[in-house]
Parts: sequence; structure tokens; C-alpha cells
Amino acid sequence: MSSSEVAATTKSDRTRAAIRDVALRSFRERGYDQTTIRLIAGEAGVSVGTTNYHFASKNDLVQELYLDVQTAHREAALPLLEASDDLVERLGIVFRTGLSQLGPYHRFASEFLSAAVSPRSSINPLSGDSGPSREIVVGLFRDAVAGASDKIPAEFEKDLPAALMLGHLLLALFWVYDSSPGQERTQRLLSRGLRLLKLSLPLVRMRVLRKPLRELLDLVAEVGA
Amino acid sequence: MSSSEVAATTKSDRTRAAIRDVALRSFRERGYDQTTIRLIAGEAGVSVGTTNYHFASKNDLVQELYLDVQTAHREAALPLLEASDDLVERLGIVFRTGLSQLGPYHRFASEFLSAAVSPRSSINPLSGDSGPSREIVVGLFRDAVAGASDKIPAEFEKDLPAALMLGHLLLALFWVYDSSPGQERTQRLLSRGLRLLKLSLPLVRMRVLRKPLRELLDLVAEVGA
Repeated sequence: MSSSEVAATTKSDRTRAAIRDVALRSFRERGYDQTTIRLIAGEAGVSVGTTNYHFASKNDLVQELYLDVQTAHREAALPLLEASDDLVERLGIVFRTGLSQLGPYHRFASEFLSAAVSPRSSINPLSGDSGPSREIVVGLFRDAVAGASDKIPAEFEKDLPAALMLGHLLLALFWVYDSSPGQERTQRLLSRGLRLLKLSLPLVRMRVLRKPLRELLDLVAEVGA
Repeated sequence: MSSSEVAATTKSDRTRAAIRDVALRSFRERGYDQTTIRLIAGEAGVSVGTTNYHFASKNDLVQELYLDVQTAHREAALPLLEASDDLVERLGIVFRTGLSQLGPYHRFASEFLSAAVSPRSSINPLSGDSGPSREIVVGLFRDAVAGASDKIPAEFEKDLPAALMLGHLLLALFWVYDSSPGQERTQRLLSRGLRLLKLSLPLVRMRVLRKPLRELLDLVAEVGA
């Protein structure tokens, strides 16, 4: 941050950032259930009213967490993407760097899942509120597809990133359930899935598969809509 | 039920059955969150203590619901399976009759999902407690595969039913989120998925795909373990 930006920071901005930082650390250290606005206010040295002024609910702070995680995801993925022009390798980079960001939250993952899984939850990854962090992931998959030397049929390229984002959510669901050390089973599932994709990719050019694949992608694209 | 069976029914059995029937109706009419042991006891005309004697928790009654739903699923599927020996048609019968049973619960589906999704929840469909109802579904898929005239490679036949059961759970997850009239989008996703399967099935005989498919099935089989 340049000194002029620091100078432009208001007291209100600094208070907001402090509350946010405390909340993100609390989610990492206490999980979702044990994090309360009262605890956050106390640790940030402000009143509950001030916390509520900046963030109307705990779930607004979860959205800050989502943005923080996905921003770090993008920062981890982009330099690695520069090193490969192979489509499946590039997808693997986006999936793997995404899983890495989740690592510190695994012991609390079932709490976040229970709170987020309802279609009515504001922190559901497919909710309107989650749009900005979701778009970071879709954008990463779009970059991964667009920068690959092996081209997929143009008719699939548009909707593939949103479908891959849903695939990433399903992988994260598997990961929540994965109690193996370091969640190595999720890593194996991903590696095998990528290998299968590598072998299957030439098949998308088969005319007999194009129509049902097209229809499936249309439907999957609707899920996030 | 024969008259001798009726005669053998004890008062305790009848009380248990009455509590169970009241609970299942309550889940259908009130959903998960609004159903309480106190309400059930009142409607069954017994004390909370008596209810707890037969069912230690609300979640024990959810297991009765699961068994009821899957028993009806089997009864709906078996006669239809007799009419077809085509593998994909038979799988479609099991998936469709499974979805039909869920229909009456759709308006409360997100409540059940929130309560069941944690890996630590006793009513998680992959939990030990849910084993008996899960086995009914795996058994139905096993029947569907075994009775088909088009054979899949023997190495895949053993683990396919458990993988299909997981596929059914994912379809049910999609269904929870599906707010289209009559959940027609879930029906479309299923129809398109089955069409894709029909077209892809010959590919499982391709040697290049066998090893990764084998590994993927192994991993998927582990999920339920």
C-alpha cells in the first residue's frame, strides 16, 4: 500500500479492517459455530453496535472470508498457470491451489457446510451474496481454459468454467468428508479424475456425444443461475 | 398381516408403531425443524418418557422415515424392473422411483439437508445408523445391474451399485436446490445423464479407459466405507 493510500484511509476504514481481520482469525481458530459478533467486537476493541454497523451479521463476515480465500486462491494459481499450456494440467493447478486454501479450515469444515448448505442460506456458495467470490473461481477456470494450447470445441468453452466451478464445489464437499491424513484421498480423487479427463477429452469431438454433452452443460450452467 | 401376527403384537409394539406413524406424518406435514419429541408424544397420546423409551432421539425417528421411504422405493421399483432388461432403462427406473418417493418432502428438503449434511450427523445418509436404508438403495441398483441383458465388464459390476447409490445422493442434492415446478429440472438432468450413459457405455470396454475407471470406482466405493 502506498503512503498516499494509507493517508486516504479513514478511521472508519481502519475499524472495518480490524473487525474483519479479527473475524477471519476467529473463523480459522474457533470455526463457524463458536465465532460470535460479541467475541469479535471484544477482540477488536469496539462495541457490538460498531461491529453491526460495518457487518450486519456473522454471515457478512463469512463473505469476507470467502473473498479472502478466493483472492489467495487466485494469487496462488496465476503464477503456476504461466508455466503450462496443457489444458488438464492447467485445470489441475486451479483445483489444487483451491484445495490448498481450504486446508486450515478442515477441522471446522462440517460446521461451515451445515451453515452454508441450505439453498436459503446467504453463505451458500451459489447464493447471490456469494457471487463475487464465486466469480473469482469461475474467472480462474476461464483463464485456465482460454490459455491452453489444446482447444476444446467452441460451443463448450463458454459454459465450461461455470461447470468446473461446480465440480470444484463437489470436490470441496468430498474434502469435508475426507478424514484421511492431509485429506490425501481428495488429492487422489482429483488426480484420478484429471487423468480420466485427459483420456476422455478427445471423445468430446465425437459427434454422437456432442448433443447430450451440450445439454448437460446447459443444465449444469442453470444450477448456478 | 395375518391374524396370528396381530395376536402376537404386544402393547409395547403397538405403542412403538403409533409413535412412529405420528412422527412420520409430522415430518411430512411440519418438516424436520418443527417436529419435536414433545409434539409427537402429545399426538400419540403417550408421555415424553414413553417416546424416549422407544426412540432415544428425533434422529432415531428420522431413521424410521428413511426406512419407510426406501421400502416404498423398492416396492415401486421392483414391478417396473420386471418389464425391462435394458441396463440404462433399469437404472432409470431405480433413479426415478427414488425421486418420486422424495416428492412430498420437497418443501422441507433444505431443513433435512442442513440437519443431515454434517459428516458427524447420525442421519447423514452415509452414517452407520443410515446403513439399513442405504443398503436398500444399493440392493436395488445391484438388482438393476444384475438383471440387465447388456453386461458390463465383471470388474466393474461389484462396485457399481455403491457408486450409483452415491450418484442418487448427488441427484437428491440437486433436487433439494431445484425450485422448478414439480422439480422438472431434476427429471431433465436425470434423463440427459441417462442418455449420456447410454452413449458412453460402450466406451467402458476401451482398454485405455479401464484403469482410470477402475481407480475412480475404488475411490467412490471408499466414500461410503
